[in-house]
Amino acid sequence: MSSELFHVIEPRVFKRELLDELCDITDTARALAKTKEGAAKLHASLADKRAMLYFTQASTRTFLSFNNACHILGIGTSEIRDPAISSEIKGESFDDSIRTFSSYVDVIIMRTPERGLASRAAALMDEIPRRVPIVNAGSGPDQHPTQALLDIYTLERSFAGRGGIDGKTIGMMGDLRRGRTVRSLCYLMKNYHDVKLVFISPPNFAIRNDIKKHLAQDKINFTETGTMDDALGSLDALYVTRMQSEWDVEGESLKVNLGEFSIGPNEMQMLPQEAVVMHPLPRGPEIDPAVDSDPRAVYWRQEGNGMWMRVALLIKIFGAEL
Amino acid sequence: MSSELFHVIEPRVFKRELLDELCDITDTARALAKTKEGAAKLHASLADKRAMLYFTQASTRTFLSFNNACHILGIGTSEIRDPAISSEIKGESFDDSIRTFSSYVDVIIMRTPERGLASRAAALMDEIPRRVPIVNAGSGPDQHPTQALLDIYTLERSFAGRGGIDGKTIGMMGDLRRGRTVRSLCYLMKNYHDVKLVFISPPNFAIRNDIKKHLAQDKINFTETGTMDDALGSLDALYVTRMQSEWDVEGESLKVNLGEFSIGPNEMQMLPQEAVVMHPLPRGPEIDPAVDSDPRAVYWRQEGNGMWMRVALLIKIFGAEL
Amino acid sequence: MSSELFHVIEPRVFKRELLDELCDITDTARALAKTKEGAAKLHASLADKRAMLYFTQASTRTFLSFNNACHILGIGTSEIRDPAISSEIKGESFDDSIRTFSSYVDVIIMRTPERGLASRAAALMDEIPRRVPIVNAGSGPDQHPTQALLDIYTLERSFAGRGGIDGKTIGMMGDLRRGRTVRSLCYLMKNYHDVKLVFISPPNFAIRNDIKKHLAQDKINFTETGTMDDALGSLDALYVTRMQSEWDVEGESLKVNLGEFSIGPNEMQMLPQEAVVMHPLPRGPEIDPAVDSDPRAVYWRQEGNGMWMRVALLIKIFGAEL
Repeated sequence: MSSELFHVIEPRVFKRELLDELCDITDTARALAKTKEGAAKLHASLADKRAMLYFTQASTRTFLSFNNACHILGIGTSEIRDPAISSEIKGESFDDSIRTFSSYVDVIIMRTPERGLASRAAALMDEIPRRVPIVNAGSGPDQHPTQALLDIYTLERSFAGRGGIDGKTIGMMGDLRRGRTVRSLCYLMKNYHDVKLVFISPPNFAIRNDIKKHLAQDKINFTETGTMDDALGSLDALYVTRMQSEWDVEGESLKVNLGEFSIGPNEMQMLPQEAVVMHPLPRGPEIDPAVDSDPRAVYWRQEGNGMWMRVALLIKIFGAEL
Repeated sequence: MSSELFHVIEPRVFKRELLDELCDITDTARALAKTKEGAAKLHASLADKRAMLYFTQASTRTFLSFNNACHILGIGTSEIRDPAISSEIKGESFDDSIRTFSSYVDVIIMRTPERGLASRAAALMDEIPRRVPIVNAGSGPDQHPTQALLDIYTLERSFAGRGGIDGKTIGMMGDLRRGRTVRSLCYLMKNYHDVKLVFISPPNFAIRNDIKKHLAQDKINFTETGTMDDALGSLDALYVTRMQSEWDVEGESLKVNLGEFSIGPNEMQMLPQEAVVMHPLPRGPEIDPAVDSDPRAVYWRQEGNGMWMRVALLIKIFGAEL
Repeated sequence: MSSELFHVIEPRVFKRELLDELCDITDTARALAKTKEGAAKLHASLADKRAMLYFTQASTRTFLSFNNACHILGIGTSEIRDPAISSEIKGESFDDSIRTFSSYVDVIIMRTPERGLASRAAALMDEIPRRVPIVNAGSGPDQHPTQALLDIYTLERSFAGRGGIDGKTIGMMGDLRRGRTVRSLCYLMKNYHDVKLVFISPPNFAIRNDIKKHLAQDKINFTETGTMDDALGSLDALYVTRMQSEWDVEGESLKVNLGEFSIGPNEMQMLPQEAVVMHPLPRGPEIDPAVDSDPRAVYWRQEGNGMWMRVALLIKIFGAEL
């Protein structure tokens, strides 16, 4: 077993050994859940724990997958999804609110529109007597480590029997400048051998330099293109993302010819037969629903993986025995 | 045991055998819950299941009764009661949202102000690999099948020792044109022998022709009247409903002389001694709270029945063993 | 064991024997929770119960501590935190709403901005067949009995080895006129011997005459001052409260020189070495966060005590065996 896991703030804490272990725990938990006895074992494993889901940024998937992961493990949950629900929270400092949550629960899972709050909460925890782990479920535009974990799991299992992620060519398409999903996933690629990344985006939405610098330091091979057609034929996986128009300053998303960065039945013909198509969802027009029935479309499976990987993460954090 | 039950979209799926079975399961579950051991058995019976309560139409009773039915059975629940809570939901298609819920849970219980969404969700489920049952907890103005179930149970148990619903005369009073409760209950009457229905309503709020056509096809005896006093003396049950003023176009509810369609101590004197008064609640002025203490007023018991009938429904859907 | 406990509406129902018993149950529950087996025992103890958390007044601490107390005991919870979520509630009487909750759950925990609603709900329960206990989690400006309980527990345990609350001098500082916390705590002081109270407040925010009358009747020694410095040196505990500016009519809170009623490192030097500083939280500027690290600052421990005292209260109400 790899070393212990406490706070989960950014994807860089995940080394290969830990990633492999989390993928294995995910498989174990899923297998257990298939029988009544196994499900009862999972349900009892963390029944003495309580979680706070503090989601001041709206979320369906991340919230529901964490909430149901807690249900699977018997963890009792409390939620604040609308900070306006509590006038007290408005009147007190962020630190006092977080410390208050920590008085009642055993883990705080938080998602905020602001950058850096999860790491600030973790730093606070490290200073107080009743220290509880902080799990970053998305903090502003920067990192979304649990999304990166479920993406890794989906890639690994999609390439099962083909050597896993090692040696694969992975395309990432869409709004690469602002999507934190792609950013977080890139940070994890150094854990795999001979991965090639192909970034496909409109010129104004290219991957940022800080990521490219990291990739260069980690000696990860990557190329950039604005033309999907050139790239599709060489890919083992295509990770499609939507335009993050909520961060638009002057409607710059609207100027993109989205058709050039969207997948439909025609584009699927260019993709190799063993390749997979992923997407963090929710999707916009960048994936035609007609693609859903293609066996290479794994984004719905990826979504379900999210719950099970979060089950694994909570098992690992608390050291639960299965 | 009757055949299996999966989606619950409209009351017409309920045949007599299934109705009787659900009433029996309801009794069994209630009896179990009276002891600590029985309650623990119920609580373990579906502890490996998770439910999504997707209520975009406000509801107190239906929500709370389903939520607590899940608690009784150990089912973990997630809720979306305000769609505005999730900006993601706003941005994605209804189908994608429902499929997302189905990635995480084992049953979707949904209530919407729009017509037909529950059956659309059920059709979607029938096309995907991880198919979960859809329970319609009220879809627009048309159907509310679980309300009809609890009404059947209440009638059957109110007439216990008197042969159940068969042969009874049931009055339905109020806004029969727009109340989905009465509509759904009418559809189930064909399962019982020699039932007579008496519709009591203001002229502009009479039961719709589509229902009358169904009753005629099913050879169910019914009469219509605008005068409560003529009818009360002949009833075994009086099902009172409120004016559905939320569907008013130009305040038509306000023009009704509500006193002619309301029950107070005077009206109770006209009702036979063995008759019962029901109401789906919440009530407006159509039932005087002074009636509450009359032993024939069973609407509060009916409300509690709602939770237990929903317990039975979930037991049946999942084939849980008690 | 003291007599039974059902409704918890106001602090005056708590006599010494019951207070001591609740403090003991709190200790027992906390000790149990430290082992997996003990936690499982707690979790099973009330797993057949369901609670309604009806919080129409915003609250973080009281809500979360009750919700998590329920989780610890295996009680299933339903919540209404925003009455606007349910259009039905708007349309029906308060009595009908409360009776509806009682149809589905085994205890109603309620917090309202209006005075007297908890006692009205309790009176309603005493008239109906399915009577469930009402727990007042704060009703308008008058009483907050469970806060008073956790304050008693915190004081008792802070003075463990020094004879408990008996014989101690307790200062209460801040907006004593409008803070219901202090009011409720004062009512419980008659249960202890030789307690001295020191009220420290701006002139316009002094403790009300009705409380002073009660204290006089109960022969509890108290003094009032507007100058903190005179009092600090004599205290065993200083209970600090915030300005309740939400009740301001014309901004009267703003006219207070808050520095004279606030605690920082300098004021802590005037406080005896064995004294403790309490606060119901959330805090405003009246306690400098620099005080948090002083071992005499027990307000964070007090906050955590709140959850465990509520665990004890629910155990006592339901007569659960540990």
